[in-house]
Amino acid sequence: MTVATSTAMRTIWWDAGRVRLIDQTRLPHELAIVVCETVDELASAIRGMRVRGAPALGVAAAFGIALAAVRSEARDGGALLADLAGAGRVLRATRPTAVNLSWGVEQMLSRARQLAGADVPTIRQAVVNGALALAEADERACRALGRHGADLVPDGGTVLTHCNAGALAAVAYGTALGVLRAAWEQGKRFHVLVDETRPFLQGARLTAWELVQEGIPATLITDGMAAHFLKAQVQAVVVGADRIAANGDVANKIGTYGVAVVAKENGVPFYVAAPTSTVDLSVPTGEHIPIEERSPDEVVHVAGVRIAPAGVAAAHPAFDVTPARYVTAIITERGIARAPYADSLRRLVES
Amino acid sequence: MTVATSTAMRTIWWDAGRVRLIDQTRLPHELAIVVCETVDELASAIRGMRVRGAPALGVAAAFGIALAAVRSEARDGGALLADLAGAGRVLRATRPTAVNLSWGVEQMLSRARQLAGADVPTIRQAVVNGALALAEADERACRALGRHGADLVPDGGTVLTHCNAGALAAVAYGTALGVLRAAWEQGKRFHVLVDETRPFLQGARLTAWELVQEGIPATLITDGMAAHFLKAQVQAVVVGADRIAANGDVANKIGTYGVAVVAKENGVPFYVAAPTSTVDLSVPTGEHIPIEERSPDEVVHVAGVRIAPAGVAAAHPAFDVTPARYVTAIITERGIARAPYADSLRRLVES
Repeated sequence: MTVATSTAMRTIWWDAGRVRLIDQTRLPHELAIVVCETVDELASAIRGMRVRGAPALGVAAAFGIALAAVRSEARDGGALLADLAGAGRVLRATRPTAVNLSWGVEQMLSRARQLAGADVPTIRQAVVNGALALAEADERACRALGRHGADLVPDGGTVLTHCNAGALAAVAYGTALGVLRAAWEQGKRFHVLVDETRPFLQGARLTAWELVQEGIPATLITDGMAAHFLKAQVQAVVVGADRIAANGDVANKIGTYGVAVVAKENGVPFYVAAPTSTVDLSVPTGEHIPIEERSPDEVVHVAGVRIAPAGVAAAHPAFDVTPARYVTAIITERGIARAPYADSLRRLVES
Repeated sequence: MTVATSTAMRTIWWDAGRVRLIDQTRLPHELAIVVCETVDELASAIRGMRVRGAPALGVAAAFGIALAAVRSEARDGGALLADLAGAGRVLRATRPTAVNLSWGVEQMLSRARQLAGADVPTIRQAVVNGALALAEADERACRALGRHGADLVPDGGTVLTHCNAGALAAVAYGTALGVLRAAWEQGKRFHVLVDETRPFLQGARLTAWELVQEGIPATLITDGMAAHFLKAQVQAVVVGADRIAANGDVANKIGTYGVAVVAKENGVPFYVAAPTSTVDLSVPTGEHIPIEERSPDEVVHVAGVRIAPAGVAAAHPAFDVTPARYVTAIITERGIARAPYADSLRRLVES
């Protein structure tokens, strides 16, 4: 297996009728590739967080519909569309918070529906091509988003990030880390504080790994340390998003809301980096975003070792909602949105 | 080995010229007892966090001076006092933030100094008796503190705590958990959210263990979840302290400051429970409290498993400072202090 360099790295890709993806549960210890031949295998990989991150999930959903198209034994276009819709239901049900899953499914289904009268090979090919185009567009969006956001990164300061909104959360390049990559490529120099991001440790395992590969100086901290450093040493926070409501409320990995509150309290700008596909104009505020509850087992175990006594319960909301009033700006591939977000986000999404 | 029930449990005790203590690094999986025969052995147990928690460290320091008195081969009182002072330097140097270490040492040394003209057996016995009295006083203080604080605990609500300020952080009963125990004994019913408290997991390992033993309903959460629950579900926060400055700024386990900021932002009262021995009137504000830096290895490993890639740095400030403006009240064994703390704390300490 060849280990790609980080800037060339792809998190998920289409390979002759199969989906290949980096198994993110095995990083940073091992760079292993999972091969999914069916929608069910891909859905299982998504539920198990072998692939995660909102933009990557949008692409995974599109590839999932493409897998369904390739595997379908339908004899006519109508039956094929029914198969694709079924696959869409399976994929949408895997994880409720990241809107990109639904978005990726919908992009593919609407493409297929436009060919409703066509034969099976035509629709099949259109869906596969659509998924490939969507994956390419994701990478272009991350690079554009990075260029827009790079201006906001302080030169010579410290930036804090939570979870992983890196190349591993997209097809490549990343959103929050895309902003940092773009700033670094422009010659800005800074230091990144990486929240470890319990329970799943995306910061410790994934963001730290990407930054080490990139050669950007990074220091790992526990989530509880973020506030301490925000009080004195941090000039900006950049995070990703799993869903952004029409009013600018941001659902992101659990722990983000606390970082945002403490950042505001200390006058530190709090930036959210996400493609417009993460903005869900159908959801008026963050209160309407469903928050995924994952297994408490992921809280009471770390790296396979139990850390808590028998008999104690554990909670595991996988995301939280940061109200828009804590968000300094939302960086998208089409430009930067600022408050009032109801106007600025709609303009960017509909442009 | 007999496992004591939680209310009768002692964290550290004197046993015929030796110090015995529960090895808190091995909980919750094993209730093991460490025996310290010398000051160096005890200092090593403190540095290794086998015994931790501000009140417990005050008692450990006193027992350490008693160990020095028992082991000393001094032929006269002056030489014995010199040996005790040397032991005091070793003990004070183990951990810089918890003022109770210095306080416990000073309590014993001043007792010994008052007997400066006496013979070795007399001073030795006075120091041992003094340490035993200090340990008993610690437990009485926790129980008194608990009674004062119990009034502040909501009946039927949810309380959040960070780290372990329980029986394991004192000789028995605890400070923050002492408040909850006292409220529970009074018949109040509530639910406790326990921050796991990375990197050392005192919440997951110690607080959860104490609450399970006590039969108080508890739910373990990761540190990043605290803010999410403070937004909607928590009626009060109760934590301990490692040092309280004259103005009411509170040094406590890393992560406390973020909890306090988010609590205030959401109108949730934030209570600090600590004996007056934790108040350091010689320190005007929190900025003057030394913050212990521990090994980054404790951040990049969990339960012996490495969680981060090679090549990434890690930071490990063991404490943070919560400015007094975020503290709703400080609960001591002599009553409850409220802002302005410069007045209220001095009154309680000097009463």
